[in-house]
Amino acid sequence: MSLLIYNIGTIVGIDTERRERIAGAEMDQLGRLDNAYLLADKGRIVAFGPMEELPAIEVEERLDAEGGTLFPSFCDSHTHLVYAGSREQEFLDKIHGLSYEEIARRGGGILNSADRLHAATEEELYAEAIERVHEIMRMGTGLVEIKSGYGLSTEDELKMLRVIRRIRQEEPIEVRATFLGAHAVARNYIGRQAAYVNLVVKEMLPAVAREGLADFVDVFCDRGFFTLEETERIIRAGAKYGMKAKIHANELAISGGVQLGVKEGALSVDHLECMGDEEIEALRSSHTMPTMLPGAAFFLGMSYPPARKMIQAGLAVALASDYNPGSSPSGNMRMVMALAATQMRMTPTEALHAATLNGAAAMGESHDFGSITVGKVANCFITKPLPSPEFFTYAYATPLIRHTILRGSIWRG
Amino acid sequence: MSLLIYNIGTIVGIDTERRERIAGAEMDQLGRLDNAYLLADKGRIVAFGPMEELPAIEVEERLDAEGGTLFPSFCDSHTHLVYAGSREQEFLDKIHGLSYEEIARRGGGILNSADRLHAATEEELYAEAIERVHEIMRMGTGLVEIKSGYGLSTEDELKMLRVIRRIRQEEPIEVRATFLGAHAVARNYIGRQAAYVNLVVKEMLPAVAREGLADFVDVFCDRGFFTLEETERIIRAGAKYGMKAKIHANELAISGGVQLGVKEGALSVDHLECMGDEEIEALRSSHTMPTMLPGAAFFLGMSYPPARKMIQAGLAVALASDYNPGSSPSGNMRMVMALAATQMRMTPTEALHAATLNGAAAMGESHDFGSITVGKVANCFITKPLPSPEFFTYAYATPLIRHTILRGSIWRG
Repeated sequence: MSLLIYNIGTIVGIDTERRERIAGAEMDQLGRLDNAYLLADKGRIVAFGPMEELPAIEVEERLDAEGGTLFPSFCDSHTHLVYAGSREQEFLDKIHGLSYEEIARRGGGILNSADRLHAATEEELYAEAIERVHEIMRMGTGLVEIKSGYGLSTEDELKMLRVIRRIRQEEPIEVRATFLGAHAVARNYIGRQAAYVNLVVKEMLPAVAREGLADFVDVFCDRGFFTLEETERIIRAGAKYGMKAKIHANELAISGGVQLGVKEGALSVDHLECMGDEEIEALRSSHTMPTMLPGAAFFLGMSYPPARKMIQAGLAVALASDYNPGSSPSGNMRMVMALAATQMRMTPTEALHAATLNGAAAMGESHDFGSITVGKVANCFITKPLPSPEFFTYAYATPLIRHTILRGSIWRG
Repeated sequence: MSLLIYNIGTIVGIDTERRERIAGAEMDQLGRLDNAYLLADKGRIVAFGPMEELPAIEVEERLDAEGGTLFPSFCDSHTHLVYAGSREQEFLDKIHGLSYEEIARRGGGILNSADRLHAATEEELYAEAIERVHEIMRMGTGLVEIKSGYGLSTEDELKMLRVIRRIRQEEPIEVRATFLGAHAVARNYIGRQAAYVNLVVKEMLPAVAREGLADFVDVFCDRGFFTLEETERIIRAGAKYGMKAKIHANELAISGGVQLGVKEGALSVDHLECMGDEEIEALRSSHTMPTMLPGAAFFLGMSYPPARKMIQAGLAVALASDYNPGSSPSGNMRMVMALAATQMRMTPTEALHAATLNGAAAMGESHDFGSITVGKVANCFITKPLPSPEFFTYAYATPLIRHTILRGSIWRG
């Protein structure tokens, strides 16, 4: 299958250097080409260039971009989009002034989602999740990480991960799966956290590994959730099965999770609403990607991670949606870029790199995804003609995306 | 033209009492009916009720709502959506740390839009604006106020208002026009504010009135813009031509604009980021609608109006988009509801009333618009099936609107 896209007004997110990530001041430098074509073959980008150099070749499909802007697809490195049932009642409870603890006592929070997931069949779970997957594909996402963690029992964690596997097998979006058994202590283990961690390490992890269901292992390392020691034990156990680590860290407090992630070579440490100078310093000499989830801070009305401080310290940073029913009921990465720009003072170009190449790096996939580079997977989306690339972030709620291209084919879902 | 909508999962925003506005604790009480039909004829709602009572009548068109939720159309009482050219460069300047004053010195701000509007033909201006109008129609708005105020000369203010008139004549969305000559002092009058106010009162207003181009008169009454005395003079001059007042008040400072609006019987006072107890007290005994524009506070990263305090004081409040190229480049009223809920702790039901009936009241139009009431104009939109009405606000970035009905007809634009 070959595809020629022509009359592209501007290609953005070009990276001819094939960087593994983009850090510091370079995050604000946009690789762009005006009035261009792009050629894909067998799912990969094989060429792009100015329209004057359009090759006279036979292709199976041609797409007139009509002057629109071509962006590399978003790489959303942190979602929980497989779940059963929305949780707007908790949203109402929160507006009415109930605390997190009170909402939890009324059956809210992660355990609410666990109860609902337990009651749903694998087929029901898949039917709900696939709608969300198609939604984010329409919104420009081409590579997505999806976590387990609403199962909290071996059987239900496997059910969730099998749904993720099915999405991965059936859809042109690229999917990575993360085992997050340590998302919360299951209801029947409350007060017996050590026993639950044992279950995660000795029963869940081996079962998940046996079916080859997870690429990564993740732990909610924060105040009131899992300790540093428990986190270390779980990610080391995951490492034995070849699962790289990602860590939920520093959402509610400075937990030490950042430093642990760096020490253990985690792919990413995610959330980071609470960051001190030591956390930033620890990240400077590492390959662990600090990943911010401003959709959650926005939805919960909390403070945002110190994005400018991290970029000024020379770090690469990633943005992800955190799509989940409790704290971020949206997988719209363009909205995440707008939040980064309006609430955290990231420029639209920085936000784009954070949502594409650096997101891919947070999944260890920047060799194949996250930029317009010859040889990479041909994942991109095309907008209406824009007055500038920045308009995409500025006019944040205006529908602009016209075409989604995944693996070199136009996706018409 | 008669239209029967059937299989409606839930109708929300029903108001059988035909209230002029909804205030205080009543703002959180939702008029709803499950499993319903709605019948429109000659542009008006003539009946609605439970599906069991579906009348067996001949209609010209039937629409299967397929279990979706039917909302009354949004009534967006504050926009500046006729403008020439976007202003994302200023957005970038602001992210890079430039102050409002520095941006103005670089040619930014309202005067930037005035320069661009001056250079555009009426036809060009219309072509740009109509795209935005269709965008908000798709997003559920059925009644919109549009302001002048990027002309700042008699000729250019008339050009802008003629574009608004053309939209009003050609589109099924209901439009109200506001003359806002006193949006800023025109470039060639800088340093001669009194002379500019004279121009507004003695030349612009009579010319606008002669062509019948404006329903309302508005003034930017705030620190660094127009004084209380100037505001009073302009709105009194407008009143002589039958134009009711709306006032931009208390965005940058407590300006006295709220009290002036109350004293002069203004339809609304808009912005209200800076509100003291005296302002709230003044509004309690008035029919002037306090109107909040959280899209601007969001986009500029400023603080939000004290919505809860106003509702708890028993006030009715309205929400509007402030769609404009400098401080709120979005006319998406659903996003405005989500901002109200997540950032100002309004419930989704309060936000819905603020964005519909109370928005209509801020234009003096609640007798005909803003709720599902027999006899009102049949303006509504229908979503996909929702787990609850609140889901619409909670899942704020998921596309959910399937059908727009304006004046009793399905709009297919």
